[in-house]
Amino acid sequence: MAEEDQGALPSKGDFSAWYNELLWRAEIMDVRYPVKGLYVWYPFGFSLRRNVYDLLRLLLDRDHQEALFPLLIPEHELAKEAEHIKGFEDEVYWVTHGGLSPLDVKLALRPTSECAIYPMYALWVRSHADLPLKIYQIVNTFRYETKHTRPLIRLREITSFKEAHTVHTTWEDAERQVGEAIALYREFYEKLCVPVIISRRPEWDKFPGADYTMAVDTVMPDGRTLQIGTVHHLGDHFSKTFQITYEDVAGEQRFAHQTCYGISERSIAALISMHGDDRGLILPPDPAPVQVVVIPITIGKRKDEVSAEAAGIERELAGAGFRVKVDSRDIRPGAKYYYWEMRGVPLRLEVGPRDIDAGQVTAVTRLGEKSQVARDALVAGVTGCLASFAATLKERAEAHVRTHIRVSRSMDEVLAAVGDGVTLVPWCGSRECADLIEEKTRAAVLGTDVRSAYLVDVSGPCVACGKQGSTALVGRSY
Amino acid sequence: MAEEDQGALPSKGDFSAWYNELLWRAEIMDVRYPVKGLYVWYPFGFSLRRNVYDLLRLLLDRDHQEALFPLLIPEHELAKEAEHIKGFEDEVYWVTHGGLSPLDVKLALRPTSECAIYPMYALWVRSHADLPLKIYQIVNTFRYETKHTRPLIRLREITSFKEAHTVHTTWEDAERQVGEAIALYREFYEKLCVPVIISRRPEWDKFPGADYTMAVDTVMPDGRTLQIGTVHHLGDHFSKTFQITYEDVAGEQRFAHQTCYGISERSIAALISMHGDDRGLILPPDPAPVQVVVIPITIGKRKDEVSAEAAGIERELAGAGFRVKVDSRDIRPGAKYYYWEMRGVPLRLEVGPRDIDAGQVTAVTRLGEKSQVARDALVAGVTGCLASFAATLKERAEAHVRTHIRVSRSMDEVLAAVGDGVTLVPWCGSRECADLIEEKTRAAVLGTDVRSAYLVDVSGPCVACGKQGSTALVGRSY
Repeated sequence: MAEEDQGALPSKGDFSAWYNELLWRAEIMDVRYPVKGLYVWYPFGFSLRRNVYDLLRLLLDRDHQEALFPLLIPEHELAKEAEHIKGFEDEVYWVTHGGLSPLDVKLALRPTSECAIYPMYALWVRSHADLPLKIYQIVNTFRYETKHTRPLIRLREITSFKEAHTVHTTWEDAERQVGEAIALYREFYEKLCVPVIISRRPEWDKFPGADYTMAVDTVMPDGRTLQIGTVHHLGDHFSKTFQITYEDVAGEQRFAHQTCYGISERSIAALISMHGDDRGLILPPDPAPVQVVVIPITIGKRKDEVSAEAAGIERELAGAGFRVKVDSRDIRPGAKYYYWEMRGVPLRLEVGPRDIDAGQVTAVTRLGEKSQVARDALVAGVTGCLASFAATLKERAEAHVRTHIRVSRSMDEVLAAVGDGVTLVPWCGSRECADLIEEKTRAAVLGTDVRSAYLVDVSGPCVACGKQGSTALVGRSY
Repeated sequence: MAEEDQGALPSKGDFSAWYNELLWRAEIMDVRYPVKGLYVWYPFGFSLRRNVYDLLRLLLDRDHQEALFPLLIPEHELAKEAEHIKGFEDEVYWVTHGGLSPLDVKLALRPTSECAIYPMYALWVRSHADLPLKIYQIVNTFRYETKHTRPLIRLREITSFKEAHTVHTTWEDAERQVGEAIALYREFYEKLCVPVIISRRPEWDKFPGADYTMAVDTVMPDGRTLQIGTVHHLGDHFSKTFQITYEDVAGEQRFAHQTCYGISERSIAALISMHGDDRGLILPPDPAPVQVVVIPITIGKRKDEVSAEAAGIERELAGAGFRVKVDSRDIRPGAKYYYWEMRGVPLRLEVGPRDIDAGQVTAVTRLGEKSQVARDALVAGVTGCLASFAATLKERAEAHVRTHIRVSRSMDEVLAAVGDGVTLVPWCGSRECADLIEEKTRAAVLGTDVRSAYLVDVSGPCVACGKQGSTALVGRSY
């Protein structure tokens, strides 16, 4: 539905222009909806969204259950947890009227669902035997963003918020769940071939109402970080507010401990930004809406034979579980290549008379690696091509992240590093020094306890005050 | 999470009490959310919802594409189509504030998405080659209901609205789509074993802004009808309002013709109400979250052997694609039967030492039909049991609907019939006579052009005025 177009994308070097243009050219999002910060998922974009969230569901369904809670939260419930409401009151949308009449109680569009879910948990949780309780939902949530909005990244309607909410007997068991959630998110991003950096957000940047917040970040092409997941240890703050208690083995009533963790369509922003190139999307096989496209190279009189061969290939691959499409449109092959490259299809199979005669198919990955696949070992050949393609994508993405992390031991080094990447600095842990770093470099202390394969320990004198500091991640964020 | 409970349900004869109690006992919905008309899907209920909507998606994906449009509609877009806004203005929720500030433009929570989608269609549709366009989305929609609300049936947040919106070159092609949509909905309800009656709603009851509305109704246990799907021919009303035009083959700009059609979680209300009995849910195999439950009958020393046998059966059935669960909880078998009957599991397999010795499994359907399945032909045996169970469910449901449709040729007969069913009457077609019928019987003229396997033509003198009339469906509705 986007116009057929053969023009070039802006270079990915101009990331912002490239990103915006790619989103509509590849038919991911239409930004022309008549309200700021709200966007439309094109069918192709939505099929990518379906696949990404199916992957996420598959991981969660191992030991979580999916449920669904209402969008509308009455004012008195949202206001119950003091820190929580303070964190969100500036960005909550309020429903004040039903039809032509004012409502008795104002209703908030959920910015996140603690205050919709926990009153129910107070009813559901009775005994230690009910715990741990692990439930998630995938819903739309709302933030009245006053900052610059950006499709998939900064939205007024987050259309695809996966939020999990768990309940445990002890603080320690909740902490164990924090670890499991991080492992789950790592596994999820592995499937998207997106490398992540885990860190613990500074106190002032944690989720409102949490004991602490662990964040999952990635490094975008321009070197800015994108937060693509968070895991919060809620301690017993919310259970005290919402009276979520359980009877322990000894028959005593105790407050439960909780965690929550979320992922939004930023996962798709990361996926698109990390892998794409100047010719369009590049999608890993797992989430790709079309994994294999078959292009019949029909020349002269062997047209029917080639069409039949292409159809046979499609049948065989579909039967083996691949998402495959034959493009038999009456346009020249070059236009088809352009079209499917823009949409990130991992593998293109070309089949012409010469391929038929040679008993083979020509396979070209979205990264341009060309090989011949024996027709009588098609499934194995395609499986191999896709696996090696995914491995290459992962390596490319890891190389990107690795080369965009530097070590800085002075403020000048920080300033130089954050222009096109993130940096590890020794930091004393004080708010004053974090503010000073921000003032001088326009980059924030993102986290401590940094966990990533790419990182090293840089303990030493704090870049701001010179006192002994330990490793912190510093960068500019979306 | 609902309390373990061995008490009896209210009798299904007291339908309303039965329905409300079943919803929480079978863990479908929790009605205790602190806002009227908003309900919570329990995990078990949501897994039923997932299966039902996966079935619907599978049918739609044949030739529709899924997309996603924003929830919030600016006031000026909603107000564009005069009849449409008139139809909805009393029940629209309005967002008026973002954070602490009033918004410049009031935003409606979509009551349905014509006014969110069609401004985009105006941009997307250019040429006859873009048509037909068939897109759907599955979303939450909102109605400020002032009537008595009821879970799954009359809601303020409809959590699961599947709405399809199609665009065509001609009125006739849109009419053809109306037929296809009806066929698709019939097929969907076949899978749920829910019989339907198709009819054309009277003029005054059509969708606001439509040329005409076809409705899909079923007959609930108490004889009242439930509308479980609608298909609207929109003509060119909306395309003129939203400027959805295409260039025809001759190069002329023309207004497009449109249809839209929807199904909500009422489909699940129908499914539950139609089949359930005094012991709980009865679910057809296609949507059932658990299709087969295996109960090990462990007696004395052969416990390990029985457990191993149950695990082997689970493995084999799961491998064949069934949703199967072994219930190995340490409670007596009777309590397990009760538990799984309440949750509507189509087939229970009992396996004990005697079954092992005889090389068989004891199979009991949710309707109580008992049979022996040979262990070495397990998959075939289970497949057969489930198919015959589904056929029986369908017959039972059809018998229910058939026996709840009567023919009435006088107002007295109408009054007698609508106490516990629907009725076919000759009706002249005038609004006055429809009003008279409603006044005297508290039942409405639901539709004409009635299509159903159970119905006959009853043309004759109008029950109200005596003039020549044709067949109309009359009943009391939810």
